[in-house]
Amino acid sequence: MTVYRRAPSSRSRGRSHGHKRRLTQAERRQHTRQALLDAALEHMDAGVSFDALSLRSVARAAGVVPAAFYRHFSSMDELGLALVDESFHTLRSLLREARESGLPPKHVIRRSVEVIVEQVLAHRQHFALIARARTDGNTVLRHAVNNEIRLVTSELATDLARFDAMRGWTNEDLQMLAGLLVNTMILNVAAILDLPTNGGQPPSQALDEIVRVAEKQLRLPLLAVPNWSSTR
Amino acid sequence: MTVYRRAPSSRSRGRSHGHKRRLTQAERRQHTRQALLDAALEHMDAGVSFDALSLRSVARAAGVVPAAFYRHFSSMDELGLALVDESFHTLRSLLREARESGLPPKHVIRRSVEVIVEQVLAHRQHFALIARARTDGNTVLRHAVNNEIRLVTSELATDLARFDAMRGWTNEDLQMLAGLLVNTMILNVAAILDLPTNGGQPPSQALDEIVRVAEKQLRLPLLAVPNWSSTR
Repeated sequence: MTVYRRAPSSRSRGRSHGHKRRLTQAERRQHTRQALLDAALEHMDAGVSFDALSLRSVARAAGVVPAAFYRHFSSMDELGLALVDESFHTLRSLLREARESGLPPKHVIRRSVEVIVEQVLAHRQHFALIARARTDGNTVLRHAVNNEIRLVTSELATDLARFDAMRGWTNEDLQMLAGLLVNTMILNVAAILDLPTNGGQPPSQALDEIVRVAEKQLRLPLLAVPNWSSTR
Repeated sequence: MTVYRRAPSSRSRGRSHGHKRRLTQAERRQHTRQALLDAALEHMDAGVSFDALSLRSVARAAGVVPAAFYRHFSSMDELGLALVDESFHTLRSLLREARESGLPPKHVIRRSVEVIVEQVLAHRQHFALIARARTDGNTVLRHAVNNEIRLVTSELATDLARFDAMRGWTNEDLQMLAGLLVNTMILNVAAILDLPTNGGQPPSQALDEIVRVAEKQLRLPLLAVPNWSSTR
């Protein structure tokens, strides 16, 4: 059984420090910003859709007056974009690292799946937001998420182009394969988010099965590379 | 350029007949049922999420009193299930037909993609509901959609098992490949639903590109079949 380490939740970051030193202004500012982001995630966790979130209730849950909200975000949409940005920023750099490790493809795939699953489990609420935003009514968030996914796909396509076996491939075909791999992971992440949780963690047997099948689904298309003729 | 024929919309079915013959009781009943389903789809098309739909407003838009709603559906959830059921019933039988045509795999793939795209364009609102229900808050609809997707996947896995090249494959691997193909189509359908529309139709160039890439994404994994060793 693979054990996924649960990274410290963003919610525990920067909250109470357990000592009495007065916070600097910058720390207080960061503290409030984080409290607003957390409050939005908590509300959505309780089943409220992003579009139904009110700035007023998010501010109240974060312990600030509505006017204070605007010192951090110009609108609820901007807050949503910050959440999308946070999640993808870390994920993309971890995936790039996995691919630059110089390991053989099978290990790169395993490591990439591990990185994604670790991130999803550690930042469940962020990824639940992302999963919903893809089909949600909010246009700003949907575009942001789709752009991030396109960026992940393009970075992967660029790395695929470096393999000898894909040197002659057209751009469309490189994007096609990268898209196939990214889409596969998107729906496997959705399946992980759909698992019931106990203490924030899904049952390890169900999780392991999704991970095992996901790895196969990423390995299989790569095995077809020598048999594919990419023509303009 | 492929031309997708737009099937008659469910909304034009059974509405005004243009003649004065009195409808039978069964016809009136069917008429009201359809009006309720249409009203729900129209409201969702205007951006209301399924969970935010009120029985009262759906009944009003269909021109009946709320009490009349219950002669057709026991709840809004049951109405939602009827919409999911309608869409998948036709789609599944068309996909089975495509696979039973006896055509070579490349043609079966092309025909399957065509069938899916035709259905999605002809019943855009149904599929928009399905796409959203997958990540939406409503548990009843989400389970129904996920079950239908599992059924489509299982039927495909059964058909894949008949190929000589996959005769030795484990069940998990057959489901893995079927899942890969189905997931690919799910996200391509989502991309089609995301295209801007003009008179209900997306721009044909953008649509053709999605279709062309989707066909490649279905063909590529199948090319890997001879290179895959499926072990228990």
